[in-house]
Amino acid sequence: MSAGTGGRLLAGGEHGPGRLRELTAVVLDALESGARARGGPLPAGGPEAVARRTGALCSPVLPEEGVGAEAALADLVRAVAEGAADPADPACVAHLHCPPLAVAVAAELAGAALNPSMDSWDQAPAAGVIEELTTAALARLIHPGAPAPDALITSGGTESNLVALLLARERAAPAPLRVVTGANAHHSVHRAAWMLGLPAPTVVPCHDGRIDPAALDRTLAGLGDGPVLVVATAGTTDEGRIDPLPEIARIVERYGAELHVDAAYGGPLLFSERLAPRLAGLEHAVSVTFDLHKLGWQPVAAGVLAVADTALLAPLSLRADYLNADDDTEAGLPDLLGRSIRTTRRPDALKIAATFRALGRRGLSELVEHCVRTAEEFGRAVDAHPALRRRPGGIGISTVLFRPVAADALEPEAGDAVVAEVRRTLLMDGRAVLGRAVAEDGDGRRRLWLKATLLHPAAATADLLPLLDLVTEAAERAAAEGDGGGGDTGAPVTERLSP
Amino acid sequence: MSAGTGGRLLAGGEHGPGRLRELTAVVLDALESGARARGGPLPAGGPEAVARRTGALCSPVLPEEGVGAEAALADLVRAVAEGAADPADPACVAHLHCPPLAVAVAAELAGAALNPSMDSWDQAPAAGVIEELTTAALARLIHPGAPAPDALITSGGTESNLVALLLARERAAPAPLRVVTGANAHHSVHRAAWMLGLPAPTVVPCHDGRIDPAALDRTLAGLGDGPVLVVATAGTTDEGRIDPLPEIARIVERYGAELHVDAAYGGPLLFSERLAPRLAGLEHAVSVTFDLHKLGWQPVAAGVLAVADTALLAPLSLRADYLNADDDTEAGLPDLLGRSIRTTRRPDALKIAATFRALGRRGLSELVEHCVRTAEEFGRAVDAHPALRRRPGGIGISTVLFRPVAADALEPEAGDAVVAEVRRTLLMDGRAVLGRAVAEDGDGRRRLWLKATLLHPAAATADLLPLLDLVTEAAERAAAEGDGGGGDTGAPVTERLSP
Repeated sequence: MSAGTGGRLLAGGEHGPGRLRELTAVVLDALESGARARGGPLPAGGPEAVARRTGALCSPVLPEEGVGAEAALADLVRAVAEGAADPADPACVAHLHCPPLAVAVAAELAGAALNPSMDSWDQAPAAGVIEELTTAALARLIHPGAPAPDALITSGGTESNLVALLLARERAAPAPLRVVTGANAHHSVHRAAWMLGLPAPTVVPCHDGRIDPAALDRTLAGLGDGPVLVVATAGTTDEGRIDPLPEIARIVERYGAELHVDAAYGGPLLFSERLAPRLAGLEHAVSVTFDLHKLGWQPVAAGVLAVADTALLAPLSLRADYLNADDDTEAGLPDLLGRSIRTTRRPDALKIAATFRALGRRGLSELVEHCVRTAEEFGRAVDAHPALRRRPGGIGISTVLFRPVAADALEPEAGDAVVAEVRRTLLMDGRAVLGRAVAEDGDGRRRLWLKATLLHPAAATADLLPLLDLVTEAAERAAAEGDGGGGDTGAPVTERLSP
Repeated sequence: MSAGTGGRLLAGGEHGPGRLRELTAVVLDALESGARARGGPLPAGGPEAVARRTGALCSPVLPEEGVGAEAALADLVRAVAEGAADPADPACVAHLHCPPLAVAVAAELAGAALNPSMDSWDQAPAAGVIEELTTAALARLIHPGAPAPDALITSGGTESNLVALLLARERAAPAPLRVVTGANAHHSVHRAAWMLGLPAPTVVPCHDGRIDPAALDRTLAGLGDGPVLVVATAGTTDEGRIDPLPEIARIVERYGAELHVDAAYGGPLLFSERLAPRLAGLEHAVSVTFDLHKLGWQPVAAGVLAVADTALLAPLSLRADYLNADDDTEAGLPDLLGRSIRTTRRPDALKIAATFRALGRRGLSELVEHCVRTAEEFGRAVDAHPALRRRPGGIGISTVLFRPVAADALEPEAGDAVVAEVRRTLLMDGRAVLGRAVAEDGDGRRRLWLKATLLHPAAATADLLPLLDLVTEAAERAAAEGDGGGGDTGAPVTERLSP
């Protein structure tokens, strides 16, 4: 049967790669020229300027008559590149937003061109095998001592946490599940409970950004009988802190509860023999959220949910005659439908597998260690800088919190407003993408900090140091403009900070 | 600040495109050689043979030492291409599994390289604008008469249905929501109710694959007071049928209920002036599932949930200080967090926008009309074929159900077993990827059919006709082997068919 149909239109078949050669050339040229035109970590001018330039290149999005593939790609890719916040620039450090590896991005092209859907064998014969090999490797990495560990590919930490709570709810049924988590947990834990119709999680206070074990003990004692899932975090979003997993696991066991660990950020420390001990206690978790689009340098999405035993996934099993009829399954067609809460599903395992094969465990370990080392060096540079002050305490994985000393000289609210203004000024000027986090200071008071989440696997500490002077200059300007009132933004920022 | 760091490693920055040029060349070569080696719509030999060949090229997935990017990509992409079920081959027609457009796949490369995450402006300055323009165009297409329509990008129809039920649950709260849907609805409607902690949906019987309005009326009358969401389907998975939306909308209104339409398959008929009237009644829906990785030729994911009024999205709004602090939002940074149940989120709007700009409304219309026309012609060819019989009634969008006449000569269960065996034989031989569906026959009895879901936007009817002879030959062999017992599979298939 002819496989050549649609040669100028389609990415697949015999002629697809040839057409993709032409179109990816347009894309790569536009990526290059867009990055040059941007000339920094993000575009200057702020949201209005970006909206204007992007709209000029891309409107109308849905014209009556098309402009053709080459013209559409040249304009849209130029717009998205010129208007990107590029995490490959060392000054783009706001979020757990990693610069993707070229090998993973190239693998994405193959996945998109072939478009396997991971919900049945007859849509993904080989891609299904690659997913199985990849999740098996991840399961062994995360639960090395378990007899039958397993792992699912998800759209990210939020979906992983959602599925973890769903599985716990079903294990508990018909008894109602109670979820207990730290004040430092990601918002997705609360959102998952809300979506699943569970009571709002009970929040355990933190000390220094980590769950206080004594407080967890009191909380569990107060809950009485009934199934409980404790959600701890290995790498908090704000500070990169790892909850005291061994103590938490002991308390959880004493109360007959279960432990889920959100290791979306910290999980890849397991690639490094030197850093893996920081995750001691993870082996007690019934399920683990793990994410390779953070410290794994994958383009989104590359989420993982690992479970200690494959039998724990049973609540996801599902029959749909068109995808996994009993007689097809019995005749040997693999049943893939119970591997996700989605139906149609991308071959995200392909880019993960390509990265794993390309770098090996040792290569990934080196990149993780690079980020951790760079953060430590960056922290020391902050400590040595006369105009900046680091949050007291250790560095959380690769996250450094700091603020200008000039902000400390003001009233607390005005100081926080200066910090927020520094971040926005650097964003608007297109000079740096720094994050923000409210966290405990040495005096126990919660203050606003600038956050540098260092995920660049190749940037040297020297590449990051210019950030310090950018912050200092912007802080001096903000402090000089008064008490940190946000320029043209009306009411003082101090009144608007979340508690 | 240096943007060149990580030139051999990363996809972004100034040097990323150069490295991607090298690696995409490896990928495109492997796609080409893999497709040639496959030599058909899918690999021959079945699951075991594919697992063996794939494992040989890809194991171990996570070695201690890496093999380098080029070698990893050459092996993995070769494996996934050689072992693909490629929907660009006209004989790959089992599912709503489309062959993606080259322009969309090329755009994915740009999205992956820049890796914007759509949950905050400072991770996606221009990509956020492109998403806003794209969802606005989709919202106007789907709810043209509404004053403030809106649309979200989702991971597919399953997530769209989940969010639609979640929004309805929150509108109803504190009253408990009841969901009513047809026996023809996608399993994701039931799964969403389960996930959200709602009672199992009440199922309305269908007539000829479509909701029976009189039965819906009786069901709603029997439910009594309280909030109800009726979920209708525009393009069923099994048959491509469109529920009688105008009658359903009238009944829903009479009972003060709300209507959600799952138009994951049928929605893109709206691109065509000639075909859009088939969706009359859609304007009464409070929300609509729409999907561009089916009749929109996008690589997965490209799901959409459209709502008649943007205010309906309020339950998704969320504050997370690190992503949308109040003072940042008031200072003009767009708040993107309430646009999804995910947090980190891919720039799927980019490929949709590139496709829309490249083809225009008219170009998309031509592709949709091509699929519908091809299905009608294919259906007539089945009708004219002496050894095949089409399911009585009209073609559903682009889905044709048929079975070998040889199966009709047997006892009903043995006949169904022949149909299942034909599909598996063609799969195992690597000659065709046909779907299966249980659907009402002319005598009112439910039988198993072969399903051809014709989503190829360029295949001519002549490209599809060889399928008919492949089926006929396989049916003759299966019938000759006895009563359809599945060869080496043990128990007769007849006992294993789902009811």
